[in-house]
Amino acid sequence: MTRHYVGIDLGGTFIKGLIMDESGQIVANGSMPTSRDGVDAVMADMIALARELSVDRPVAGIGVAAPGVVDMAAGEVKFLPNVAGDWLGRPAARELGDAIGAPAWLMNDARAATFGEAHFGAGRGFADFVMVAVGTGIGGGIVADGRLLLGSAGHAGEVGHIALELHGPACSCSGWGCAEALVSGKALSADGRALMASGGSPGLAQATGGDPEKISPALIARVAETGDAGASELMREAGYRLGMLIGNLALLLNPRRVVLGGGIALAGRPLFDRVEETLQLRIGWYLRHAPIEVVPAALGDEAGALGAAAWARDRAERAAN
Amino acid sequence: MTRHYVGIDLGGTFIKGLIMDESGQIVANGSMPTSRDGVDAVMADMIALARELSVDRPVAGIGVAAPGVVDMAAGEVKFLPNVAGDWLGRPAARELGDAIGAPAWLMNDARAATFGEAHFGAGRGFADFVMVAVGTGIGGGIVADGRLLLGSAGHAGEVGHIALELHGPACSCSGWGCAEALVSGKALSADGRALMASGGSPGLAQATGGDPEKISPALIARVAETGDAGASELMREAGYRLGMLIGNLALLLNPRRVVLGGGIALAGRPLFDRVEETLQLRIGWYLRHAPIEVVPAALGDEAGALGAAAWARDRAERAAN
Repeated sequence: MTRHYVGIDLGGTFIKGLIMDESGQIVANGSMPTSRDGVDAVMADMIALARELSVDRPVAGIGVAAPGVVDMAAGEVKFLPNVAGDWLGRPAARELGDAIGAPAWLMNDARAATFGEAHFGAGRGFADFVMVAVGTGIGGGIVADGRLLLGSAGHAGEVGHIALELHGPACSCSGWGCAEALVSGKALSADGRALMASGGSPGLAQATGGDPEKISPALIARVAETGDAGASELMREAGYRLGMLIGNLALLLNPRRVVLGGGIALAGRPLFDRVEETLQLRIGWYLRHAPIEVVPAALGDEAGALGAAAWARDRAERAAN
Repeated sequence: MTRHYVGIDLGGTFIKGLIMDESGQIVANGSMPTSRDGVDAVMADMIALARELSVDRPVAGIGVAAPGVVDMAAGEVKFLPNVAGDWLGRPAARELGDAIGAPAWLMNDARAATFGEAHFGAGRGFADFVMVAVGTGIGGGIVADGRLLLGSAGHAGEVGHIALELHGPACSCSGWGCAEALVSGKALSADGRALMASGGSPGLAQATGGDPEKISPALIARVAETGDAGASELMREAGYRLGMLIGNLALLLNPRRVVLGGGIALAGRPLFDRVEETLQLRIGWYLRHAPIEVVPAALGDEAGALGAAAWARDRAERAAN
């Protein structure tokens, strides 16, 4: 009977899960809202979802992706800013593994999404690529020489907090000048609200009926496409900032591809064009020798769970050999 | 008879060379000024130096470090901004190899220095470290998971052109906001000259007799230590900027160590303290889980030639197995 691998992606809003066979085919999936009732409730929900997915299927490994800092080697959560409760030291991998009766591995969700894109998405066939996932915040992951780059303690790939300004705006991380404070979904929405409040975008005012809560990066991109000057300038600036960030990744890692995920990847051609233009202006000399292409992610919301399942497969196969 | 490996480090001012036995012991070394008479003259000098070093010693491989962009796979130079002549396409590895009768490999000099520090210096025993070499410009190299990180075309590690400002000062690379434009030896000396010209540093004026050409990072550091307020502030700002750069490397690569080389590494404790302070303020949350130490390079001027020789040994041994 074929082996199966479960992937669980714990998000701030939803827990998503899937089970795949050893060839990587998704056999079943499911999701549930993330409980606000604390760590035990969330753990119980993740276990219930994994159990439901694995009924009548032999599970050879479980991968768990979590939105924050984790200790991969110990399988312990360190810090999840967007999930209720104090997670410090929670042995999430062991708890899930014991409940299902299979080995389990814990990893950061952006690294899981990177591993997912590497195996099933826009990174497939590329030994060197970088993922930049621009959602509410910014996550990332690095594949170098065909392997997920982890660093000395498993925390490599923290793209979102790369400084792009020596004295830039404060970031929720307690630092400043971070990419996340300058060009995340959160930052872009805030810029959009400020723009609308200043009367600088009739298009945004019309599209939202004046409700600032309705402003999102996707909406700003749509309004920009109607020719609204203010929204267009916001998107141009976002593309510039993303280009500056991606340029830094290119210089440091020389990836063949940069995979842009999260909501902003849906902003379409004008954003990617502006990223490309910025890259050529700033580091054209380098890109002549070390060309890159910036492409949208291929897996969407499923990247994290897919990557977590693929990671479990990878780890289980390594352990067996 | 034991195998030997030659390392040649082509610099803008000197060509340095050494020969080591297979255990890594340096058997002989030498150097000569870099000719200004063009590519053929420089190639002839490198060959003469390699030949002199290899008299009566069986050479199993030659490593050549060059200060610019090279095609490692082809062994061809692409662009050397600081060595006279048009190097584009010059097959330096093959020419040296043919002349000496041994396989030869070409690499960037900062990557060679990184490989040297990895085997014989401050990176020894560390599977994950980053080198930042702050000389006139800024070079770098990355060791991840015990291997030199090269990227898809061999150009990974271009630390010097990481942007630290979205709209920062112009850089000699044709870009802007680069670390090299903000905190290299060149940038720091320029800041020192401007400071002295504005009357902001009596200490610098005294130490140089008013001659701006005498200003160097080492001199600014020495004057700062005498209590000169202007020079001290320059060094504080340099430490801050280096801290911002190193923070970015830490977030992305999670190295256990950052090895700081080049002249600025000699600036001593106050600079390293300011780097450390900046790191803690900006990414303390991250460093709690992913600690790093910033240490001075151990090999000084010999790092490039040593690393090139060690790279030749590594490549030759791989080819043999």
